[in-house]
Amino acid sequence: MVQIKSAYPARIARGSVFGSGGHLLSTSTLTPDDVDFLCELASDLATGRANAMRSAGHTVALLFFQASTRTRLGFEVATFALGCQAIGMDDMGMSRSNDRTGESLEDCAAVVSRLCDAIVVRHHATGSAARMAAKSRKPVINAGDGWNEHPTQALIDIFAMRRGLRQLRGRSIAFGGDPRGRTVRSLVQLLRHEMPAEIVFCPPPHIPVPDDIVAAASEHQIRLRIIQDIDMALRESDAIMMTPYDMSDIGEAPGTDYRSPRMTPDTHRITADKIERTNSKALLYHPLPRQDEIDPDCDDLPNAMYFEQVRLSKFMRMAVLDRALAND
Amino acid sequence: MVQIKSAYPARIARGSVFGSGGHLLSTSTLTPDDVDFLCELASDLATGRANAMRSAGHTVALLFFQASTRTRLGFEVATFALGCQAIGMDDMGMSRSNDRTGESLEDCAAVVSRLCDAIVVRHHATGSAARMAAKSRKPVINAGDGWNEHPTQALIDIFAMRRGLRQLRGRSIAFGGDPRGRTVRSLVQLLRHEMPAEIVFCPPPHIPVPDDIVAAASEHQIRLRIIQDIDMALRESDAIMMTPYDMSDIGEAPGTDYRSPRMTPDTHRITADKIERTNSKALLYHPLPRQDEIDPDCDDLPNAMYFEQVRLSKFMRMAVLDRALAND
Amino acid sequence: MVQIKSAYPARIARGSVFGSGGHLLSTSTLTPDDVDFLCELASDLATGRANAMRSAGHTVALLFFQASTRTRLGFEVATFALGCQAIGMDDMGMSRSNDRTGESLEDCAAVVSRLCDAIVVRHHATGSAARMAAKSRKPVINAGDGWNEHPTQALIDIFAMRRGLRQLRGRSIAFGGDPRGRTVRSLVQLLRHEMPAEIVFCPPPHIPVPDDIVAAASEHQIRLRIIQDIDMALRESDAIMMTPYDMSDIGEAPGTDYRSPRMTPDTHRITADKIERTNSKALLYHPLPRQDEIDPDCDDLPNAMYFEQVRLSKFMRMAVLDRALAND
Repeated sequence: MVQIKSAYPARIARGSVFGSGGHLLSTSTLTPDDVDFLCELASDLATGRANAMRSAGHTVALLFFQASTRTRLGFEVATFALGCQAIGMDDMGMSRSNDRTGESLEDCAAVVSRLCDAIVVRHHATGSAARMAAKSRKPVINAGDGWNEHPTQALIDIFAMRRGLRQLRGRSIAFGGDPRGRTVRSLVQLLRHEMPAEIVFCPPPHIPVPDDIVAAASEHQIRLRIIQDIDMALRESDAIMMTPYDMSDIGEAPGTDYRSPRMTPDTHRITADKIERTNSKALLYHPLPRQDEIDPDCDDLPNAMYFEQVRLSKFMRMAVLDRALAND
Repeated sequence: MVQIKSAYPARIARGSVFGSGGHLLSTSTLTPDDVDFLCELASDLATGRANAMRSAGHTVALLFFQASTRTRLGFEVATFALGCQAIGMDDMGMSRSNDRTGESLEDCAAVVSRLCDAIVVRHHATGSAARMAAKSRKPVINAGDGWNEHPTQALIDIFAMRRGLRQLRGRSIAFGGDPRGRTVRSLVQLLRHEMPAEIVFCPPPHIPVPDDIVAAASEHQIRLRIIQDIDMALRESDAIMMTPYDMSDIGEAPGTDYRSPRMTPDTHRITADKIERTNSKALLYHPLPRQDEIDPDCDDLPNAMYFEQVRLSKFMRMAVLDRALAND
Repeated sequence: MVQIKSAYPARIARGSVFGSGGHLLSTSTLTPDDVDFLCELASDLATGRANAMRSAGHTVALLFFQASTRTRLGFEVATFALGCQAIGMDDMGMSRSNDRTGESLEDCAAVVSRLCDAIVVRHHATGSAARMAAKSRKPVINAGDGWNEHPTQALIDIFAMRRGLRQLRGRSIAFGGDPRGRTVRSLVQLLRHEMPAEIVFCPPPHIPVPDDIVAAASEHQIRLRIIQDIDMALRESDAIMMTPYDMSDIGEAPGTDYRSPRMTPDTHRITADKIERTNSKALLYHPLPRQDEIDPDCDDLPNAMYFEQVRLSKFMRMAVLDRALAND
């Protein structure tokens, strides 16, 4: 195993980049330096230049109160790649926190943090990760809390877009689909440090861009444009981060019947035909899962970065876990 | 890794402390020597004086037919800490034993014991662990069978109370809440060997202490008192083992709608205010999950031992698994 | 660890035995040489003559969209025995492929194959494993797709029957129960290469043997007999592969209420009494789980091979995974 690069020691000496408690609950508290550091570490873990085994032997608890494929499997893979063990539940419905006993999230955190070295949690309620962090003895990583935030996804997005575009400074970054999603909020909070030329939203006509997201952009003098047709983004933007068209059901508890509308109108869908017609060079990203907002006929085009984004996610999750465990 | 202490060899030579088949189904078959041995081993595993890797490379099956957080995660952590691998299901509802095929518990045991070295099982039916043990080729550890027993929890309780009180001999040990729970039965069966001065119950007025528990205490000349207000226990007892006020739903199959009453009356609840008012030195234990019988405002008081109890649970579960695997 | 035997290198050099993409979707594409190779490797893994650690460090994804005990736990055990890590879900109902998002199987495969080195999938729909293979970057192993196939079970069956009967050439191999099951189809496709004297079916009177299975047998000049009473098979066959009497519900999605009839008529049940009465030497196999088609009073008779079959399954699953990962 290659020795860890000499550029790291100063940071490593101060432990986690995640501040007091070592929790990663939101991207709003990450500094530009933190993001640079995590991207560099992820990159070095991908190439084998960084020592992946530095935190070997730790135990990471994966607590998923809400459905997941890539976040859950991605953290599991990252945990193993660090020489650590994962404990947890892919269905917290089978835990005492969800059964008739109704154990509180606070007690769950107090208990699980006595048995492991870090907690990764997904939950349908806004603020649930913060509630667990308040009672946890070990770092808590928010893997999605309702409508609120999904910070590791945003770090993955930045990492993947930096690799795809070399840098984000001066670029036009577009968002297609529902602008209220937790991945959008977490990502915009990071994007303001990247100094893109503009952030472009192509939201459904009936869903306004949330005020806090508009404020985050304007506060940093980033131009914010709203467009009505994704063709414009295909023509003018360097990267497009797509999300499902309408995610109104994201805050619903498991078992609820309500489902968001499924059909993305043609004005908001990306297809191979449109990419060809607009001669688009825009790189396509997506936190996934997608519905019909990117047609599968795009999958083999050079624009399609969303599956490569999944491949890269492993290394960013390794970097995040490595830093969370560094406090221990 | 430190060599295993010289006091152990004689016992190790005779393999598991759990007798024929190496199963741990009930605390009623454990001798005082067995309990001493397991507590000592747990303690040595906690400090690193005992070799945790003696059973490394084995596979432990965790079969949870009923909801669990700490038992399931605790056994998973203990398995890894022994250098073993855990297989299993956090939701046996997804196994063929629970789907429309309706495989019998006996066949499940016969099958799974051909694939692993020990089985840990939780099930909503009394006697289910014994049924599996009858057809298993490998040791079966009962992790809770309906109303009946939960022997590893009782061993954890004894281990934690011995550490908190130095010794139980001559002490007053109180039980608050539903006296019918499996953790209570398993623990009283161990307590009779510890020679406490008395066992005090503060049960709901409508739930009598089960006859077998009264008999177990009286058979060993331990005074048994029933009180109506938990304040008396706070004043007079050295340790209080709390359980939820009414656990009438513990034998229900998953998916059943029946739920026990949720509101613990003030006479049976412990709060920070009461502890202060009674100037109580009683140590508070709880198998968890709690409902409202211990107010969270107690969590930071020196009386509160229930989260430390969780931390210690890992080492007792390691000790139990180590002995179960020693037969192999 | 013993060096891998010298007979293997030629095969190993050409990588997986599973052809293009390295997928194992059906037994129909396996050659007699492939089967011999896998049985020999499984046998050598069982005795420790083959190096189990050749593929150590890989990650295997276990994706179960349908209930499983032995297939899921068996692959998990085999993965660990190869020094690999298993990620996955015992309940894909908690993945984004099954929740309200409805991610496609194709996207699930594209994503998961960016995070692991091989995928094992069970699903209630025929063709689901092939759909995933089409978009996966890594080998896909079909662990049962609806009514269609279950190739690793068939390999286990052949491996266990070869060990039980020394060879299948010239033998009479009987099938009791529903002849439409996926394990039957996958096994008959392998049996035609083994040159048994005959294949005997004892199906329910109301369920004809599927045409493709009749064709597979007749194409290879294997006599195919239909009988009405399992006693005849007990008297005349060398091995009987039992399956549940009526598996009409096997293609049902989880959560569906329809259940197959449960009561096997006496003409189609095997009991200890019948075995004694017919003085049967027939070896009894079963992919399990059973319902009532083999009475548990047979379990301790020398005829009963079905639990030994489970023990052997680990080594065949190790062999299959070893070959799937060899392409990597």
